[in-house]
Order: sequence, then C-alpha cells, then structure tokens
Amino acid sequence: MRTCIATVCLSGSLTEKLTAAARAGFDGVEIFENDLLAGPLGPEEIRARCADLGLTVDLYQPMRDVEALPEEEFTRSLRRARHKFELMRRLGADTVLVCSSVHPLAVDDDALAAAQLARLADLAQDFGVRVAYEALAWGRHVSTYDHAWRIVEAADHPALGTCLDSFHILSRGSDPKGIEDIPGDKIFFLQLADAPRLAMDVLQWSRHYRCFPGQGGFDVAGLVRHVLRTGYTGPLSLEVFNDVFRQADPGPTAVDGRRSLLVLQEETGAAAPPAPVVPTGVAFAELLTPDPAPAAAVLGALGFTRTARHRGKPVDLWEQGDARILLNTGPAARRDGTRLAAIGLTSPDPAGAARRAEALLAPVLPRRRAPEDAPLEAVAAPDGTELFFCATGRAPELPDWRADFADVTAAPRDTGIRGIDHLALTQPWHHFDEAALFHRSVLGLDAQESVDLADPYGLMRSRAVATADGSVRLALTVGAAPGDATAHARHIALACDDVVAAARRFRAAGGRLLPVPANYHDDLAARFDLPEEDLAAYRDLGILYDRDQQGGEFRHCYTRTVGQVFFELVQRDGGYGGYGAPNAPIRLAAQHTAHDVSG
Amino acid sequence: MRTCIATVCLSGSLTEKLTAAARAGFDGVEIFENDLLAGPLGPEEIRARCADLGLTVDLYQPMRDVEALPEEEFTRSLRRARHKFELMRRLGADTVLVCSSVHPLAVDDDALAAAQLARLADLAQDFGVRVAYEALAWGRHVSTYDHAWRIVEAADHPALGTCLDSFHILSRGSDPKGIEDIPGDKIFFLQLADAPRLAMDVLQWSRHYRCFPGQGGFDVAGLVRHVLRTGYTGPLSLEVFNDVFRQADPGPTAVDGRRSLLVLQEETGAAAPPAPVVPTGVAFAELLTPDPAPAAAVLGALGFTRTARHRGKPVDLWEQGDARILLNTGPAARRDGTRLAAIGLTSPDPAGAARRAEALLAPVLPRRRAPEDAPLEAVAAPDGTELFFCATGRAPELPDWRADFADVTAAPRDTGIRGIDHLALTQPWHHFDEAALFHRSVLGLDAQESVDLADPYGLMRSRAVATADGSVRLALTVGAAPGDATAHARHIALACDDVVAAARRFRAAGGRLLPVPANYHDDLAARFDLPEEDLAAYRDLGILYDRDQQGGEFRHCYTRTVGQVFFELVQRDGGYGGYGAPNAPIRLAAQHTAHDVSG
Repeated sequence: MRTCIATVCLSGSLTEKLTAAARAGFDGVEIFENDLLAGPLGPEEIRARCADLGLTVDLYQPMRDVEALPEEEFTRSLRRARHKFELMRRLGADTVLVCSSVHPLAVDDDALAAAQLARLADLAQDFGVRVAYEALAWGRHVSTYDHAWRIVEAADHPALGTCLDSFHILSRGSDPKGIEDIPGDKIFFLQLADAPRLAMDVLQWSRHYRCFPGQGGFDVAGLVRHVLRTGYTGPLSLEVFNDVFRQADPGPTAVDGRRSLLVLQEETGAAAPPAPVVPTGVAFAELLTPDPAPAAAVLGALGFTRTARHRGKPVDLWEQGDARILLNTGPAARRDGTRLAAIGLTSPDPAGAARRAEALLAPVLPRRRAPEDAPLEAVAAPDGTELFFCATGRAPELPDWRADFADVTAAPRDTGIRGIDHLALTQPWHHFDEAALFHRSVLGLDAQESVDLADPYGLMRSRAVATADGSVRLALTVGAAPGDATAHARHIALACDDVVAAARRFRAAGGRLLPVPANYHDDLAARFDLPEEDLAAYRDLGILYDRDQQGGEFRHCYTRTVGQVFFELVQRDGGYGGYGAPNAPIRLAAQHTAHDVSG
Repeated sequence: MRTCIATVCLSGSLTEKLTAAARAGFDGVEIFENDLLAGPLGPEEIRARCADLGLTVDLYQPMRDVEALPEEEFTRSLRRARHKFELMRRLGADTVLVCSSVHPLAVDDDALAAAQLARLADLAQDFGVRVAYEALAWGRHVSTYDHAWRIVEAADHPALGTCLDSFHILSRGSDPKGIEDIPGDKIFFLQLADAPRLAMDVLQWSRHYRCFPGQGGFDVAGLVRHVLRTGYTGPLSLEVFNDVFRQADPGPTAVDGRRSLLVLQEETGAAAPPAPVVPTGVAFAELLTPDPAPAAAVLGALGFTRTARHRGKPVDLWEQGDARILLNTGPAARRDGTRLAAIGLTSPDPAGAARRAEALLAPVLPRRRAPEDAPLEAVAAPDGTELFFCATGRAPELPDWRADFADVTAAPRDTGIRGIDHLALTQPWHHFDEAALFHRSVLGLDAQESVDLADPYGLMRSRAVATADGSVRLALTVGAAPGDATAHARHIALACDDVVAAARRFRAAGGRLLPVPANYHDDLAARFDLPEEDLAAYRDLGILYDRDQQGGEFRHCYTRTVGQVFFELVQRDGGYGGYGAPNAPIRLAAQHTAHDVSG
C-alpha cells in the first residue's frame, strides 16, 4: 500500500518536511495549508519539488466550516473553496479534506449538510478535485464517522466521499466495525494517528498528544483491518500533531513514522517484512572509553576477570558467570569518559535479525572488522547505541564473536554474579516513543507501561522493553524536557543471588558503593517488617528494597559512576518483575549528593 | 498571616529548597517526605538548618492509606505512624497530613474511618503531634472536603482536625461556602494551589499542572475568604506540583510563590501592601547596543529623529509622535547585538509604583545616575527587563526623565507614527506564569488569555498584559519547551493611522521590510473581500491582515531584525483589541526564511 505523511507531523520549513518525508521512503504527502501559506514557494514550485523527490500530493487540508450553514455563509464558503480548488490544481493535489463544521451558525440538519456538500462537490468536479468529508471528534453537529458517512451517502455525489481518521474515531470510543458498511470506493482517504489513553478534553488531546500508530493506546491496526475489508485502496497516511515532533529534527521523525506504518502493515497482513527474531540473551555490553583503568578497576572489584583480548582491536573481554563486558579503547572513544555504547544480543538467527532490522529502517552499520573476523551483524538504535546480533551456534554457549578473541585467562572466577539483569539506557529527549516502538518491532521485545520518576531537578520517564522470559531487559529512560540535565549516565545491572554478599565483596575489593541516606532505611524499617540483621546490612551497604503486590522482592545497590556509566547489583526473589521504580528518586538524589550526575 | 511553602514545590536538594524558601521570606515549610528520605541530613540536622534559616516546620506530609481498613491492615498503618511520629518529634514538626485512602482494601464506612482516625490521633497525642485529615479529590471513598470534615467531626478527637486544599476542593467543583460550617480551630492546615482549567483526569491534572494562586483559573481568593471567616489562624501554605518548577531554579520559583501569597492576602483583606499605581503610557523603550549604527539606520528610516542626548551617559533619545526610543551604548551592552533591555512607564506616582513593586518582591535596581540626574525609580521584571517609573508632572506631557537630556534637534518630524502600540517581550522558558502574575500584580495590568502560536520549529505561547484603555500593552511570549531556540528576538510595535503609507515611507527611506509569501496574500483574497488595490499594496509591502468577530481590523508589517530586535508597524481600526495572533505563524516562518531568528 502507498504510505503518506501530513506535513504538519514534521518540523521545519515545507522544503525540509518534504525532503525528510522522501528520504524516509514515503510515497506521498498531505500538504497542511499553513505550511504552504507560510512558505516562499508557490504551488507550482511545491509541485515540482515533490515530483523531484518522488512524492505525490495526496491531500490538501484542511477546509473548515463549510457545510450546514445559512445560504449567505455557505456562499462565502464556496468562494473560499473556488480559490482552494484553483490552488490545488496548481499544486497537483486531487483530494481536499473537509472537516465537519464547528461554525457557530452551523445547524443540525443532515439534509442541508448533504445538499451543500453536493454543491461543493459540483464545484470541485469542475476543477478535477474530490472532496473527502471527515467527522471531527468535536464537530458541532457531526462528530462520528457513521454520521459523516450517512451525510455523504445522502449527498450521493461522485466527487464526494468520506475521510476516516483513526484518532477521531477511537478517541470517542466509536466501534470501528461499522466502517465495513461503507463501500471502499467511497472512502476517499484514511488518516492514521495513535494516542496515549488520557482522560482529557478531546481537542487538546488531539492537538498535543497524538503519536504514531503503535506508540499509544489505540487499536489502530484493528481499525485498519476494518478499512481494508471495504476494499479501500487509497494510501495509509499519518496525521499526527505532537508538541515533541514540532521541535524535533524532521528526519528521524519521518523514519519513525514510516517504521510505524511498516509495522502496522505487517499487523494487518498488508505487508510481510522478515519475521522478528527475538534475542535470547545479552551476549555482551560494550563500554567505550579513552582510558580503561577506572572501568577496569570497578570490574575487577565486582569480581570480573579479563579473560580475552580481541585479536585485531583494542578491546578486552571481561567475564563473570554469563555477564560479559567489553572494554573498547578504540578510536570511537570520546573525551567525556566511559560510556555504554554497544550491546551484543544473543540471537538464534543473527542474519535474520539484521534483515528484520533493515526492513524496519534501522541503519545497518558498516562492519568495522578485519577479513578474518567472525561476521557480526549490527544496526543502530534510535539513540545511536550499536546493536550486534550474535550467534549462539557453538557449544556450550559461547557465541561466535568470541572466536575473534584470544584467551588471556583460562576461566573467570565465580564470585556470585550470574549475568546481566538489565541495561538502563538514557535516551535523547525527542525519541522516547520512537525508542519503545523500535525495540518492540525491530527486536521483538515487549514494551511495558512507562512510569514517572522524580529527580530532584526534573521529572523523568522510564519504560522497560523485555523478552517474555526476562532474558533481555532494557530500561529506556528520558528526562521530562530537553533542558533537563539530569542523569545522562547509563547503567549495567548485574544479577546475583545474594546482593549483600556481592556488595560486601565489591567493597572489600576496594569498590565504592553509592551511599544511601539513613532516612531511607529508617523509613524502610517502618514500612516493612524486615529482620534487624538484614536492615543493618542494607544500611551499611546502601542496599535498597522493594516488594511487589505478589510478595516478590527486589534488593539492589549501585556503584559510584565512572564517566557516564555505573553498575547496579540486583537480587530478584519471588518472581519480582520490575526495576525498583519506587526507589529511583532515592537513587537519583543520592547520585546528585555524590556529584555522580553528568550533565 | 504566616506563609509556608511545601518543599515539593521547589527543585533541588532539601538544603537548596529550604534556602530558597527562607530567602523568599516564607515563615515555614511543609516537609515532603521524599525530600527527607532522599537527603543526607538527619531529622535533627534538618530541624537545625530550618532554625538557622528562621523557618518553622509546619507540616510533615503525606501519610497515605491509613483509615477505613481491615484491622490487620490498620495495625500496620499504626506501626508506620508510630515511626513517622517519632521522626516528626526529631524534626520538630507538630502536624502530619493524612490523605484520604486510595487503598484497594479501604471500605466505605465513615464510622470505621472515624474510629481508626481517632485511634491514630490517640497515638499522635502521645508524641505531641496533630493529625490533619484531607480529602483527596480522587480518594476511594472520601473525596470531598465536607465528607472529610464529617468524619473528623464524628471522631471528635482534640488531636484530629481537617486539612483543606484549594486544588482538591475547586478541581471537583465543590462549593467552598460550606467551609464556613467548620470551626476554625478544627481546620489544622490550609494548602493552596491554583490550576489552569483543563478537562482532564484530576490526578494527572494535580500532579503536573498545579500553579501558584492567581496563575490559574480557580477562585482561590474566594476560598480563602471562606476559610478566614471560620477564624482559622494557621498558615497559608503553597503546595504545587508542576513539571516546570521541577526543573527551574528554586530561588525565583520561591519568590514567585511568595508574591502570589502576598497578592492573595491583599485580595482577601489579610494584608494591605501599597496600592497599585497603574501606568498611563509607555514613556520610552530602551535599546542596549554595542553599535548604534544599525538600529539608528532603522529608526531613521522609520521617521524617527534623534532629538536629544543624555547629559552624562552615552544614551540618545529618538522621537516621533509619542514614540520615544532610547539608544544606549553604555557598558551593559553585550556583544550579541541590539536588544530591548528597558522600558519606561509613564506613572502618575513613580515613587508609589516603586513601593508597590518592592512590597511585591520585585528587585529594586540601584540608581545608576549622577547626583544631578532626575530621580528614576526602577525595578527588574522576572525576565530581567528594567522597568522605569517615569513622572508625567511637567507640561505638556514630557516626563521628568527628559530633563537629563540635552536637545539636539528642536522637534521631531511628524511622519505618521503616533506612538508605541505594544512591546513584545520574549520570556525565558520557566517564567511564563510568573511574568503574567508579576505584570498584573506589580504594574496593575490586566492579563488576557494565553494563545498558542505555531512556529515551524516549535510551539510558542503568548499572553498579553495591558491597561484597560490599551495605553500600555505588553505581549509576553515563550517557547513551548526549554530547548526551543526560536524567536528570541523582541519587538517594538509602532502605532500608525495608515500602515501602507508608513511602510512605503520606510522602504523609500532605505528600510528593509520582512517579505511575506505570496501564498498568504492569495489566501487572504479568498478569505476576505478586500479591494484589489489594498491587496496589491499588502502584497507589495508584506502587510498582514486580521479581522475580529466584531469587524475590527488589524493591518501590520515587520522590519527585518537588527540584533535581537525588530519593529512592527500597526494599524488598528474598529476597536480591534488583539495582536494579529492568526498571522503569527506566517510571520515566524517568514523570519526563519529570512534567517531573522537568533537562537
């Protein structure tokens, strides 16, 4: 199916918007009137620009307050319409969107609305233009898609059809099944937007909180299935008003939007990209650093052993249990210190995983490897993190990538850390929803609910994506606003069976734990009936505690920060599935107190 | 009356919060539990810090999910309570806030709630603590203040009273008159917050959108009047959760909050600061520049004449009609170019205006003048703009400040500009609501509704403050988010009777007007039945047009930007009272196209 995007979804000048849409692979655009009015290019120039970029102009929008008006007002509407149709001819747009009226003089008279829309369609026909009539969710008299369709049906004009908009339909809780009663050739256009489920005024909700399909709470795919059953052959078009997109770079926004349509097409059976290959574990986390000594000291104190070194690159492998960390001192390292730059995912089919990622517009990374190195498929996540898909073919479970490494030590010590529990990846501001959709669709992870976390200097949002069995868990975290300078450090959480023992060993080996205020543990004593001895250990080591509704328990503590990275020691019991969110404000404040926050 | 602020209103560590509260002149604080738990100071240390700063700890909060529970759960509540009361004793706090339960096991049984609250109050009494019970607007069974009071009344315990919160009461639309039925000595605490009127889930509304009294849409003063009639003698305390405050510098936020309470006290008759002195006109606008030539060239082309020079400072006065602009090349000028740094307001009582401003916490500026200069009272607005209060005592209407200037030219030419129509002041991000309250309360201006303006690279909000007769009009504008780099330039709008003639003269004199796209004027022709000749002139000169519901008309155009400043030529007809907001996206896009936006 053809895919389109409305220019209002993207920031910048009209030229920037068109360029971004074309680069992301859209077939066409909806031209939002204000984008045309405010720009220096005339309609013919815009038409030529679109043609150069391989884009069609599939819709001109919106035209408001046209129908069900007193004759004098309607005559004015026709006057405006004539101008717009003339402009559309110059622009090469053949369909105009007419939104149901919110005019104070509009009357509740379907027959009048139908008659006036038919007259509008008459005029449109003279210009070779079609009219797509849409029910705004807050329309004065017409606010549901079936009502709009009844009017279009009554008007019975070849140049008049209906436009369906998933936001307007789903935000009102209308049942989209009735769409199947509309003949497919009378659906002139289909606009798609998702939105988080918010209890708020629908106009504000629409203007500020729309998002791309799959990023909100609506069943957009279900709606599209109904539309496809009518025989609709027009484009799938994104129309999203969103305060974040208004400020974001239009290039990534357009890619994000097109990925959402690709996923939607897959969900509705309209397309079949390569199937997702769900990773089965974290093969490694890679730290990039200009100076490996501080990170190596922390790893050593945590009980990691340097087991191997890459044959051709300045990369060391540190191991303990199933936790593998690469320390890379290669040329990509930046002066601002150690950072978590890449993740290896154990995959049953690395090549298939890479094909899936590429089909969903993830940038495939050039293979920076020597001819003798094992092939490593890698793509970039929206935040720039490199994701490597690693084979697990070799017995017992060493992934192929280990073949490029030469052993330094026969076997790592076993000091109580079992593996990587999760990776916490701070995200650049504009890409929170995009990141969740990327990890869900490209990697096949499940996205959990997002939670707000209070930092002393701002609010943060966090959302976990994970495999069903928890073998891969990523926590995506973002500041509440772009100016937010808090908590840009990422962290690696290490799973252990006894966090007290692991923390003690770390400290005994010279490691520095993040101190936690005594007030927190005093409060813990009041909230939970914990054994005195345990509490004393938690106080001593700065261990935080959480318990879920089902009695699952979470004990965790943090190392001090090295560059842009810190480590967490994590003990899960009784099926605890969260990440200790109630303790995040305590940890964030403690990091501010310890000056462990980089900005 | 005593004034307090909850630590949750302010960003930063607890120490930063307390310092900001004390500096702003608050008498006490509510300690928000998480601020204590997350910080390194123990209760005794916090108590000592507060004492050093002259602050009392008036409330410890919140305690949740205490009442109307099965006995086993309630026993756990008492256990937690005992710990908190002990902590409060160490902290020196004598009142605890208990919010109505949202516990899933809470039952709808007022008698049980009253009995359990009485038992809690028994325990509290042992520690010398009082319990203030408050209805959360989203409480499971108790969500209105009168319901909470009925339970407190039934419990009939000396250590149990009620806490009133203006947000919880007014967000539900409860009638606050019933507050007068509560004995004043049973109102243990009064929390104040305002909020914009939003149709949204009340919990989200409360957590993210509260603001200081006078900055939202609630009649907080009316509520306080009812409370005062009960004989309540406790503090007025601010409790505002707000995503902006979480990121803002706590110092200005605290001052903003205390100003809101001062205004509230005035409105309720609880205090009488010096009365507002409403300005009667704009005496001058002052441009600060390291190089006066570019601004002087624009002023000259606009028809201004350099009429005078300051006797002791490098400041020139340019005049035309009643428009007066100072060009200051003094040492405060910065390298980033010409900016609008100060405004002179004609005042019937400059000293009174300054006393009012000082009483409402506006920083009084040091008089940077020579002994022989006329006295000039000046304060700083929240955005740093210097506001001078100028006398109008001298005939015919020259303000005293002119006495410091020596004439260069006898009289300015009259070239059609009558005066300053309005000044558009871009604001730093965090201070939009503060700015509106400041201008309303300190200067006695009326605040109008805020409007959203779409810029190609982000959303902007704008709000006008003006005198009733329009003699002083300020448009306060802010980007939608802190990272927003758009439109930091300010502008001076000049009133004229014939904008076409004024624009032509400007261009003929070598001035450069901002070009407006032809698409805009094509659309104008379709929307309004304007004479062809007028339209041709508008196209030629880049004049924008707006018409209000009452037929009032607004014609305006813009000069190119000089440094951080541009000028607007404005013609108002038929009582048009706005600022051409529908044209703002066109102007903003045109400025981006012309690269007239500084970031």
